[in-house]
Amino acid sequence: MKNFKLTIEYDGSRYCGWQAQKTHAQARGRKHSIQETIERCLGKILGEKIALVASGRTDSGVHALGQVAHFKSATRLPPQKIKAALNAVLPRDIRVAAVEGVASGFHARYAAVTKVYHYYIQQQAYPSAFFKNYSYWYKFPLNIRAMKQASRRLVGKHDFRAFCASGGEVKDATRTIQHIAISKANILSCRMICIEIEADGFLHNMVRNIVGTLIDVGRGRFAPRSITTILKKKQRALAGPCVPAKGLFLVRVYY
Amino acid sequence: MKNFKLTIEYDGSRYCGWQAQKTHAQARGRKHSIQETIERCLGKILGEKIALVASGRTDSGVHALGQVAHFKSATRLPPQKIKAALNAVLPRDIRVAAVEGVASGFHARYAAVTKVYHYYIQQQAYPSAFFKNYSYWYKFPLNIRAMKQASRRLVGKHDFRAFCASGGEVKDATRTIQHIAISKANILSCRMICIEIEADGFLHNMVRNIVGTLIDVGRGRFAPRSITTILKKKQRALAGPCVPAKGLFLVRVYY
Repeated sequence: MKNFKLTIEYDGSRYCGWQAQKTHAQARGRKHSIQETIERCLGKILGEKIALVASGRTDSGVHALGQVAHFKSATRLPPQKIKAALNAVLPRDIRVAAVEGVASGFHARYAAVTKVYHYYIQQQAYPSAFFKNYSYWYKFPLNIRAMKQASRRLVGKHDFRAFCASGGEVKDATRTIQHIAISKANILSCRMICIEIEADGFLHNMVRNIVGTLIDVGRGRFAPRSITTILKKKQRALAGPCVPAKGLFLVRVYY
Repeated sequence: MKNFKLTIEYDGSRYCGWQAQKTHAQARGRKHSIQETIERCLGKILGEKIALVASGRTDSGVHALGQVAHFKSATRLPPQKIKAALNAVLPRDIRVAAVEGVASGFHARYAAVTKVYHYYIQQQAYPSAFFKNYSYWYKFPLNIRAMKQASRRLVGKHDFRAFCASGGEVKDATRTIQHIAISKANILSCRMICIEIEADGFLHNMVRNIVGTLIDVGRGRFAPRSITTILKKKQRALAGPCVPAKGLFLVRVYY
């Protein structure tokens, strides 16, 4: 059996997330998962039942520019042919950027060292006609300097329990954030704020809860220094709200 | 009667164009025009039949970041209220960025001095999962330096008959291109080339025919200097192909 690594880009708008699950998403008509869509296509191309393992799940509505997954197969097809065949049969909102043959020990989840997420906030008085599914429209002005100050208090090794989805029970909520960058961007005349977070791992909804908290800082509800208190007290209720999935992009996984 | 100026942003993907017309677009299920959609909403808000006049039509699938239109009305509603009411009832893919009261003589088409269009080309081996409706995927590498050289030959006052839609009969095809800028951009990890063209007026399909010709130069089919020959000979058949509407954005109208 050979081991293959896929680098995948997807528009998550139509899907119930990376993995099939009985959730609101499926009830709301997002019936298919990204994983099963790719597995089905791979199965047709290779004539085998394929099991894909991703670097991690993404929730319904979350997008990816560089999700990574691996699968084992007995195929003799070279990686380039698999890539071309996949892109020919996959729906247009899932694209395979790369297929590589890798060592048999490579595991997309366990071997991941850090992951990078981007979150896009529309900062303008009216929502753009273009980015409805790709960003969170927030019309009140945000103080970026305060948000940057707050973000510096999140960087490093911390117990991020306060930023984990309520109900999510994790034994060890310690993660290390390598960096957070907050920048302004103008995309198709839409004024955006992009928040980039790189960490060695993410708890469920961690990026979205951090972004919601940074927005609260940006609008003056919290002072930047209160981040330190929130981290110490480890209570979800103290942090800001969870922002919508649609603004979130898994950008890159480092191995 | 008061005169109002609208600045409008729209995602043209679902529409048959700015103006209703019996074309392929309507036959293919794009039944509504942007103009009639806005007129209907304005009619409801103001309780009058409203006729909108735009700076110019845009074809089916073409987008706008700054289309301008005017209308006359007896309303006593202030511009800010009209804007808020419009954005509350318009579909999400049409947004009104500004409503202003203007002098009774202001005419969105006749008063326009120059217009700026952007055209987006995806320059990568595989098409993005995100920009299907907003750019033209061209996988072969393009020589940007040659395209810039060619573009300089288009700037200025010329007879642009060779770049006018075949079948389009115009008495005077003379237009002045103020500038053409060709730049690379990375939008959501997608490698784009953006071609910006500002002119005092555009013939039907002029931007799309110019872009198709510049792509032909970029891939080496024409030398940059052949632009001068094409302009002189005024034959549509000598220029490059018309690229798809979906990559085109009307960005700004100057008055």
